[in-house]
Amino acid sequence: MTGYLPPINDIRFLIHKVIGLDAIAALPPYRETSAELADAILDEAGKFSSQILAPLNRIGDLQGAKLATDGTVKTPDGWHTAYQHFVEGGWQGICASPNDGGMGLPLLLGAAVSEMWHSANMAFALCPMLTSGAIELLARHASADQKERFLRRMISGEWTGTMNLTEPQAGSDLSHIRTRAEPQADGTYAIRGQKIFITYGDHDLTDNIVHLVLARTPDAPAGTRGISLFIVPKFRLNADGNPGEHNDVRCVSLEHKLGIHGSPTAVLSFGDTDGATGYLVGTEGSGLACMFTMMNNARLAVGQQGIAISERAFQLALDFAKTRKQGRDPRNRTECTILHHPDIHRMLMRMRSSTDAARALALYAASRLDLAHHHPDGDMQNAAQAEADLLIPMVKSWSTDLGVENASLGIQIHGGMGFIEETGAAQHLRDSRIAPIYEGTNGIQALDLIGRKVLRDGGKAARHLILKITDDCTAFGVAYPDEAACVQKAMEQLDGATTHILHTCPQDPVLMQAVASPYLRLFATCLGGWIMIRSLDALTTGEEPSNFRDQKTASTKFFLRQILPETETAAQQIYNSTSDDFASPERVFG
Amino acid sequence: MTGYLPPINDIRFLIHKVIGLDAIAALPPYRETSAELADAILDEAGKFSSQILAPLNRIGDLQGAKLATDGTVKTPDGWHTAYQHFVEGGWQGICASPNDGGMGLPLLLGAAVSEMWHSANMAFALCPMLTSGAIELLARHASADQKERFLRRMISGEWTGTMNLTEPQAGSDLSHIRTRAEPQADGTYAIRGQKIFITYGDHDLTDNIVHLVLARTPDAPAGTRGISLFIVPKFRLNADGNPGEHNDVRCVSLEHKLGIHGSPTAVLSFGDTDGATGYLVGTEGSGLACMFTMMNNARLAVGQQGIAISERAFQLALDFAKTRKQGRDPRNRTECTILHHPDIHRMLMRMRSSTDAARALALYAASRLDLAHHHPDGDMQNAAQAEADLLIPMVKSWSTDLGVENASLGIQIHGGMGFIEETGAAQHLRDSRIAPIYEGTNGIQALDLIGRKVLRDGGKAARHLILKITDDCTAFGVAYPDEAACVQKAMEQLDGATTHILHTCPQDPVLMQAVASPYLRLFATCLGGWIMIRSLDALTTGEEPSNFRDQKTASTKFFLRQILPETETAAQQIYNSTSDDFASPERVFG
Repeated sequence: MTGYLPPINDIRFLIHKVIGLDAIAALPPYRETSAELADAILDEAGKFSSQILAPLNRIGDLQGAKLATDGTVKTPDGWHTAYQHFVEGGWQGICASPNDGGMGLPLLLGAAVSEMWHSANMAFALCPMLTSGAIELLARHASADQKERFLRRMISGEWTGTMNLTEPQAGSDLSHIRTRAEPQADGTYAIRGQKIFITYGDHDLTDNIVHLVLARTPDAPAGTRGISLFIVPKFRLNADGNPGEHNDVRCVSLEHKLGIHGSPTAVLSFGDTDGATGYLVGTEGSGLACMFTMMNNARLAVGQQGIAISERAFQLALDFAKTRKQGRDPRNRTECTILHHPDIHRMLMRMRSSTDAARALALYAASRLDLAHHHPDGDMQNAAQAEADLLIPMVKSWSTDLGVENASLGIQIHGGMGFIEETGAAQHLRDSRIAPIYEGTNGIQALDLIGRKVLRDGGKAARHLILKITDDCTAFGVAYPDEAACVQKAMEQLDGATTHILHTCPQDPVLMQAVASPYLRLFATCLGGWIMIRSLDALTTGEEPSNFRDQKTASTKFFLRQILPETETAAQQIYNSTSDDFASPERVFG
Repeated sequence: MTGYLPPINDIRFLIHKVIGLDAIAALPPYRETSAELADAILDEAGKFSSQILAPLNRIGDLQGAKLATDGTVKTPDGWHTAYQHFVEGGWQGICASPNDGGMGLPLLLGAAVSEMWHSANMAFALCPMLTSGAIELLARHASADQKERFLRRMISGEWTGTMNLTEPQAGSDLSHIRTRAEPQADGTYAIRGQKIFITYGDHDLTDNIVHLVLARTPDAPAGTRGISLFIVPKFRLNADGNPGEHNDVRCVSLEHKLGIHGSPTAVLSFGDTDGATGYLVGTEGSGLACMFTMMNNARLAVGQQGIAISERAFQLALDFAKTRKQGRDPRNRTECTILHHPDIHRMLMRMRSSTDAARALALYAASRLDLAHHHPDGDMQNAAQAEADLLIPMVKSWSTDLGVENASLGIQIHGGMGFIEETGAAQHLRDSRIAPIYEGTNGIQALDLIGRKVLRDGGKAARHLILKITDDCTAFGVAYPDEAACVQKAMEQLDGATTHILHTCPQDPVLMQAVASPYLRLFATCLGGWIMIRSLDALTTGEEPSNFRDQKTASTKFFLRQILPETETAAQQIYNSTSDDFASPERVFG
C-alpha cells in the first residue's frame, strides 16, 4: 500500500464531538457552515487528496523540481494538472473571506482539510500553504487596490504566493535583513537583494507568482523596526491587470534537500538589473508586524505537516505489519504477521496514539483561532486568543517532533524494507525532517512559549489553561477515574514546573532558555493527555461504531499509560537544570 | 567543516583510565599489547580515517555504488585506492589470530579503531566490518584447508567476506530459508537460491569475494536445524589457490537505499546455471550455530556505528554552532554565535554526553568479550561472557537509537542548512537509520535481552550486574555523593523493574515482549549513568589536561541530570503495561 486513506472518521469525530463545530458555526461569519456542509467538504478533500495528490507523492520525490537551463523551474510530472484541479475545486480560498472571493469557512475546517493535503503530498501542499499565509497577510494589510489586483487572484488559486524573509545572514534573526527597497517617483519601490529558502519561489504551475518580500527602506532604523513588506510580482501587471513583462527577479538556484523534493526551494535574486518593482504593504517599518499576523496560522499549518506525515507513515507501517509474515505469535507459537508481535504493536500504537492526540490538539487550537477572530464577545475573543497564543508553539513543535519520531518508527516497523526507498517509508522521514526547522525552529517555539506566552503575563494564561484542564479532569474522573488520575498527575507536574519556572526564570534568562524545550514537551504532552481523555468522554454517547470506539479507547489508554509518562522525564530535566550548567559554552565546548 | 577529527583523547582516556587496557593486556594472547603500541595504533587509525576515508564520505553518498551493464558493481571514485591503503596498513587483520596471519590485538582496541572507520565513512567501513564477521566465523569453524585457502587472504584484506542470510521470506526469522545446497561427488555442494540485502555482495575492490551462505541440504529438517553454512567464492579457486573461473553467482540488482549509498547492497542469485560451488563449513545443520558465534562481535560493531555517527554529527554541529552568528546572547544581549544559545547548548551537550556514555559502554563490552575469550580462569571467563551477553543487545540497540536521535539533533542545530544535502548533516541521519534495523532489529535485541539474557537464568546475570554497579556507586559516592545518588536512584528503578518482570513475565510471553523495548532503554540508560560516573572517578587522578577534565565533567553531569531521568518514563511504561493492552492487535488495528 503506497496510497493514502483519508482519516475522515477520525477528523469528523474530533470536529463534531470533541471540539464542537456547532459552537464555531454559531459565530457570525460561519453561520452557513452546517455539519452537512462540513462533512461534504471533508469527503471531497479526502477524495482529492487520495485520488489526485497521493499518487504524485513518490513521483515528486523521485523527479524533484528542476531549474531548467532557461532559468525557469519545472515541477514534476503531473504537478501542473493536479494544481489545475486544485484551482477548479476552489480549495485555495476555502478559509478566505467571501468579500475577497473566498468561501469563508472556519479555520477548524480548513485545518482539517490541509492535514489531508500534507498527508497525501507534503511537497505539493506546501504551495497552497505558503499562498494561504500570503493571502492572510494581504487580507489584513493590503490596500483595496492591492487586494483587487493581487489578493483575489491568489484566493482563486490563479496565482500563488511566497514569503521572502530569509537571507544568508538573517535566518531565525530577521533583524539583519539587508535587502533594500528604494522609493521610486511612481510610488513603487525598487527592490534589490538576495533571498534564500523561498518555498515555491519559482515554478510552472501558474502564470504569475506574488512574492511578499521583507526589505529595508533607505535611512530606515537598524534592526527589525526598519523592515518593510512589499508585494513583488514575478511578472509586472499590465494595465488590464494581467501579467506583462518579467519583473527583475530571477531564480538563481534550487536547493538539494533531504526531502520534499517536489517543492522547489529557491534562491531568488531581486534587482540584478533595473530593480524589481515592489509595492509597499501597510506602512514603512511595519513589515515584521505584518508578518506576525500570519504567524499563528502558519505555525499551525506546519504543525499539521507533522501530524499529516505521522498519519501517512502509520498507514504505510500498519499495512506492512498486516501483510508481512515473520516469526511466531507469542500467544500460540503459530506463524503470524508481524502485527502480532507486541513490540511491533507498541510501535504502531505509539504512532497512532500520538497522531490522534496531536491532531486533536491542533484542531482544538484552530477552533480557538476561529473564536479569537470572530467571537462577538470581546472578552471571549481575548480569552480564546490567549489560549491560542499559548497552544500554537506547542502544536508546531510537538506535532513536528512527533512527525519525525513517527516517520522513523514507520521505517523501523518495516525492518530492512524500510531502508529501501521504493517502500516509501524513508521518504516520510526525509520529508518530515524539515518541519521542526522552518516557520521558527522548534527551539524558537519553546522560547516563544516560555518567554512570551508564560513568563510575560506572569503565568496568567498558562495557569488559566491548567486550571481549566484540571476542572475538566475532575469532571471526566466520574466516568473515567483511572484515566483522569493519569492526567491529573501529569497536570500536577506541569503546575509544579510552571511555578518553578515563574520563580526562577524571570531573573535568569539563561535558565529560561535552557529549560524551554523540556518545558514545551512537558506542557504539550499534558495537553495531549487532556485532549485524549476528552476524546474518550466524547465516545460515551455511544454514537460511534463499536470498532471505532475500541480503536479510540485503545489509543487513549496507550497515550495515558505509555506516552504521558514522558512528563516524568521532562519535569526532572527542568528541575535538574541550573544556569551554571549552561554558563560557559566556550569552555565546555572549547 | 566536513572533516573528521578522531576523538583520540576520549578513546585513550576510556581505554587506559576507565576500562583498563592493562588488565586486558595481561591476558596471555595480548601480552605484547603495550600502552605505547595501543596509542600508536589509535594514532595511525586516526590519521587513516581522517585523511583517507573521511574525504570520500560525501563522494560515496553522491555517487553511490553502481551496477554496471556488464553485471559488475562499481564502487565510488577513490574507493579502490583507499581500500588498497587499508590493505597495506594491515587493518583488516588487527584482531585476527597471528596463527592465521593477523596481528592478534584485543577486541577492545579493534573496537576503538572500528569506531573511527565508521565515523569517517560508514559506507566504506561496512566492507571491513562484514569481512571481520566472516573472518571470526571461519577462524572458529573452518577446516585447516579452508583457512589456508580463504581465511588468510581475508585477514590480509586481499579478499573480502559477505554474510548471506536474508531471503525475501526470511528476514528476522531465518527458519524459512529456502536456498538449497546439494552435495556433489567431489565433496562440494551446488548452491541454488536468492539472497537479499547482501552488504558488499559485489564490488570492484578485490579480485575475489568470499560469500558465506546459509542454505538447506536435501532432506534437512525444517526450521533452523536444517540450515548449513557454506563458503561460496565469487571466483572458484585454481589449483594454485588463485581466483579462476567465475562461480555461478551473480549480482541481480542493487538496492536504492535511504543512506550508506557507497555500500552496495546486493541481491545475489546463486546457481542460475550449473549451481554455485560451495564448501561446507563445520557440519551439516550447524549453520545457524556457526552464525551465533560471531553475533556478539557483529552486534557490538553495529552499535559502534551508532556511536560513530553520533560523534561525526556532533563534530559537524559543533563546528556550525561555533561559526553561525544569529541572535543575541542571553547573558549580555550582544550578538553571538548560536553556541551561546542555551537551547543549542542543550542539544549539543545531549549529543556529546550520550555519545560519551555509549562509547564507554561499548568499549567496556568489548573488554568483557576479550576477558570471556582469553581469561585463564574459567570462572572469570564465564562471568565475563555472561556480562557481555547481557550488555551486547543494549550496546547494539541503545547506541544505534542514539545514533539516529543525535544525527537528527545535528540537523536541528544547523537550522535550515541542516536540510540542505551539501551541509552533510542530512547524510548522517540517512546513514544512521539502518543501524537500528540490521544485525537483528532493535526490537529483537530487546527480546534477546529480556528473554534470553534476563529471564532465562531467572535474572541471575542481571542481578549480578546491578549489584556490581550498586557497589561501584557506593564507592564513588564518597567523592561524588550527588552524582552517585542519581545513579543509585536509577538503579533502584532498574532493580524494581527487573523484579517486576521476573514476577510477571515468565508466564506471560505477550507482556514480556510488550515491555522489552522500554526495559532495554531503562537498563541501558542506567548503564550509561554508571559508566559516566566511572569516567568521572577516573578523572580524579588529575592526569588529564584541565580543559579535558572540564569537558568530561560537564558531559557526565549532563548525562546524570538530563539523560538519566529517561529511566523515570521507561519504568512507568513497564509498570503501566498489561498483556491485555496488547492482546488483540487485529481488533485495535482492525
